[in-house]
Amino acid sequence: MSFPLDPAIASRLKRTSDGLVCAVVQQYDTHEVLMVAWMSDEALARTLATREGTYWSRSRNELWIKGATSGHVQKVVEVRLDCDGDTVLVLVDQSGAACHTGDRTCFDADVLLPGEA
Amino acid sequence: MSFPLDPAIASRLKRTSDGLVCAVVQQYDTHEVLMVAWMSDEALARTLATREGTYWSRSRNELWIKGATSGHVQKVVEVRLDCDGDTVLVLVDQSGAACHTGDRTCFDADVLLPGEA
Repeated sequence: MSFPLDPAIASRLKRTSDGLVCAVVQQYDTHEVLMVAWMSDEALARTLATREGTYWSRSRNELWIKGATSGHVQKVVEVRLDCDGDTVLVLVDQSGAACHTGDRTCFDADVLLPGEA
Repeated sequence: MSFPLDPAIASRLKRTSDGLVCAVVQQYDTHEVLMVAWMSDEALARTLATREGTYWSRSRNELWIKGATSGHVQKVVEVRLDCDGDTVLVLVDQSGAACHTGDRTCFDADVLLPGEA
């Protein structure tokens, strides 16, 4: 099944030279930033059509339906495009861990600058 | 004044071919995602050293201290690196608008997929 992207949306995107936009993924209720990934036009179209978080894997060079193998799926609640068209904010309901390490978010493990007391 | 990046941090970064890491900027208390920008090693080092949100402007090709001209500065509360070293999450206290359009966030204006009722 193919998912064409609405031309009215496609025309607003400012893609990388690889044809991708950045996706910031946030848990819709707790507002945790879970992960950052990349979307091709097809990944964005599939996300909008199915409400399943779908990305482009730059390492595997293929469409990547989040949770397809891990079961840690993302039910998409809302999607917003930023002011210059190169980043989407994806509000999701994340099942289990968002990070491949098993952490809830990809930002749990490495604090570069701690909060001030 | 120059800001060298701690070698222990520099060695954990996975930069783009332009030498940048992605920065997701979040308001520390409301948890709004304010904007996404890019950081060079120097921008990250300056952010960590001064707690002033500092980025690399890809359009102007120069270091960009957020709010230096607009007054909409970002006081940095905490910085975290993600699991694969290519993105930092920057928790800030944003003065005024984060977006150059005058909106509070860069994601306020363009909803691609509305939340379900």
